[in-house]
Amino acid sequence: MPDFAEPLARLITELKRLPGIGQKSAQRIAFHLLRAAREEAGQLSAAILDVKEKLAQCRVCNNICENDLCPYCRDPNRDPKVVCVVEEPNDIVGIETTRQYSGRYHVLDGALSPLRGIGPDSLKIKSLVDRIGQGEIQEVIVATNPTVEGEATAMYLARLLKPLGVRVTRIAMGVPVGSGLEFADEVTLQKAMEGRREM
Amino acid sequence: MPDFAEPLARLITELKRLPGIGQKSAQRIAFHLLRAAREEAGQLSAAILDVKEKLAQCRVCNNICENDLCPYCRDPNRDPKVVCVVEEPNDIVGIETTRQYSGRYHVLDGALSPLRGIGPDSLKIKSLVDRIGQGEIQEVIVATNPTVEGEATAMYLARLLKPLGVRVTRIAMGVPVGSGLEFADEVTLQKAMEGRREM
Repeated sequence: MPDFAEPLARLITELKRLPGIGQKSAQRIAFHLLRAAREEAGQLSAAILDVKEKLAQCRVCNNICENDLCPYCRDPNRDPKVVCVVEEPNDIVGIETTRQYSGRYHVLDGALSPLRGIGPDSLKIKSLVDRIGQGEIQEVIVATNPTVEGEATAMYLARLLKPLGVRVTRIAMGVPVGSGLEFADEVTLQKAMEGRREM
Repeated sequence: MPDFAEPLARLITELKRLPGIGQKSAQRIAFHLLRAAREEAGQLSAAILDVKEKLAQCRVCNNICENDLCPYCRDPNRDPKVVCVVEEPNDIVGIETTRQYSGRYHVLDGALSPLRGIGPDSLKIKSLVDRIGQGEIQEVIVATNPTVEGEATAMYLARLLKPLGVRVTRIAMGVPVGSGLEFADEVTLQKAMEGRREM
């Protein structure tokens, strides 16, 4: 690599640790910050520290929040009988953009992955069982990712939770809306066929 | 948009100001930083401030450097008779990765863009003319971007510098190596045809 001045090289190294940021993007961002107003760089730098300082996990659902309870657990208009289980707090953002879901959430903080040493005890599964034990929850929608780990987690949860007397459902997998069949891989197409519905 | 806790919303806003970072990438990075070790976030935050504090422009070529002179202006083995003119310091990085160029550089800090109010006086053109006036430079390679602004800047420089008795050349435009003709747009193909060479 060419000679970067040391502070620049260090910033590029730090940026490359972020998800989705490779060498080229890191360079672009670093040079952007170099040219940006001191105020902009200062605000970004401070904002990074602030999320570490000021945010915590909701004591009920493990979503990220500033207070003891996240907005969804606090909102009396959200249906307490339905709980959507997701891997990460960011997944809640995606589901909320649909504006169709009005139940509560539960964040697992990951998915089962024996290869990476992540077993049931590493995830927030016990607190989910405790929530169900309180008797109000009737349906658990498992919205873990459609990956090997997410599927394994979904299977595990179904086996664990059904005996507790709740309905356990899994979000549909199939061809994404707006895309063409030609772009879908064979596993997705298989899921789409399996999940077909009467018209 | 869903409710993000305020510090998180602010970090996402700041991240979206970076080049190539949209809403989704900003969310991913913000949630990553939220989960990352406090040390990693602290290092990134500090590195951002450091590039603003510790780096300056080379007094000869306007490249970014820690000292008064950048490594290329300081290196006695670089040919002082050839100067490659680029828009941004980051462009030097690209040219250096070729390991074929051993001359000096000159960073314009942008390109001519009348629409955005960027005229010759906004760019580091006068210092380039001064450098040529010292008599050592024989060739100026104009390596501004193959865009409307970059082309306009190249034309302007050619008209300005040729009367000073230096050779002014422009980097070749054509089909990128490793790509297929089917992916090239018509202007690129036209440039590739115009710039054809004997085999």
